[in-house]
Amino acid sequence: MPIHRAPVPTLERLATYLTYLNELDARGVEMISSSEMEARTGINAAQFRKDLSYFGEFGRPGIGYNVRELKQRIARILKVENEQRVLLVGAGNLGSAIAGYPGLRAQNFNIVAVFDNNYNKIGRRLWELDIHDIADLKSLNKEMQARLAIIAVPANAAQEVANHLVDADIKAILNFAPITLKVPAEVAVRNVDFVQELAVLSFLVAREGAGDS
Amino acid sequence: MPIHRAPVPTLERLATYLTYLNELDARGVEMISSSEMEARTGINAAQFRKDLSYFGEFGRPGIGYNVRELKQRIARILKVENEQRVLLVGAGNLGSAIAGYPGLRAQNFNIVAVFDNNYNKIGRRLWELDIHDIADLKSLNKEMQARLAIIAVPANAAQEVANHLVDADIKAILNFAPITLKVPAEVAVRNVDFVQELAVLSFLVAREGAGDS
Repeated sequence: MPIHRAPVPTLERLATYLTYLNELDARGVEMISSSEMEARTGINAAQFRKDLSYFGEFGRPGIGYNVRELKQRIARILKVENEQRVLLVGAGNLGSAIAGYPGLRAQNFNIVAVFDNNYNKIGRRLWELDIHDIADLKSLNKEMQARLAIIAVPANAAQEVANHLVDADIKAILNFAPITLKVPAEVAVRNVDFVQELAVLSFLVAREGAGDS
Repeated sequence: MPIHRAPVPTLERLATYLTYLNELDARGVEMISSSEMEARTGINAAQFRKDLSYFGEFGRPGIGYNVRELKQRIARILKVENEQRVLLVGAGNLGSAIAGYPGLRAQNFNIVAVFDNNYNKIGRRLWELDIHDIADLKSLNKEMQARLAIIAVPANAAQEVANHLVDADIKAILNFAPITLKVPAEVAVRNVDFVQELAVLSFLVAREGAGDS
């Protein structure tokens, strides 16, 4: 099955298409062409067609792609068509923003439990979720069987949290802490580092400025 | 100057190195080798050396790189060695998490003003910052002269916010809303879409699972 061998950049593009297709579907748009996709996502039309052809035939020449059908097929490819249980560690501002983010539910991600190590937070609620002691993570996940987790704790606590998650049989971590986590090879990690994104923008702005002088 | 032509993937890697170098410097580590850099960032050692050579000579063979010196040079390349003023739009949970994020100050990003369109928020404070009316963005930025801005509003409000920012002479936008913004070509946009990152992880986890069967 070629799907199992899809490289990460292809997956990233598929996730980008899916975000935009959800947006179109919510607005009631029924069809989309590869050139419209290019205009909105910045990924060129030929690349878009190539990415889709990798997983079988989709569109009709001259007519385009059915938005809902394409959305469902990409969701199936990315395995996000069924509910995905997610653990969240960190009940601070960032954790709160993540747990309250409407886009998660829209793409079938369901945060099933929140953990923290702060005794002022444990036992309280974050949105509709109970905040549990991080020490109970492994035992609770035996019931919940989540495979995905989000780390939203300060940098100095993140590695210890990652160790807890690995121990609780988590197989993929989305890490918001600005450190590079050490985890076993079979655990996937993706980092969200918005300060790094600002640094790239900072350079690009300076370059624009340099062009003026 | 080759610096002006540095491609975005190079900049992304430089920002990754910088994050890790800040971490090392904070821990008092003085030297780093390219192979240690590879072990922590996942970017291979040859690529690291090549990225640096693009901007002139840095390390010493067999000895490695001085952490503080390398950090300062990369900060200079990325133009983050001086304070960068940033506007934040959106004073909700996400905006609060961003404004309170300690890593921003550590890399010289300074959020100078927060904007919202909610009259229950305007006039209040977010951390130590006043929340201003989005309608005043253009006039206030005439004084503040920020070139960078962060959008932390719901998807359905993000395009209108982007229009305000462009009108206020913002040249680079970090967008947390899960939509593709339309802006003039001279305005740089980077998107932070963590649901997309979760979708990639979801696929990778499913692939691991498939390998077991």
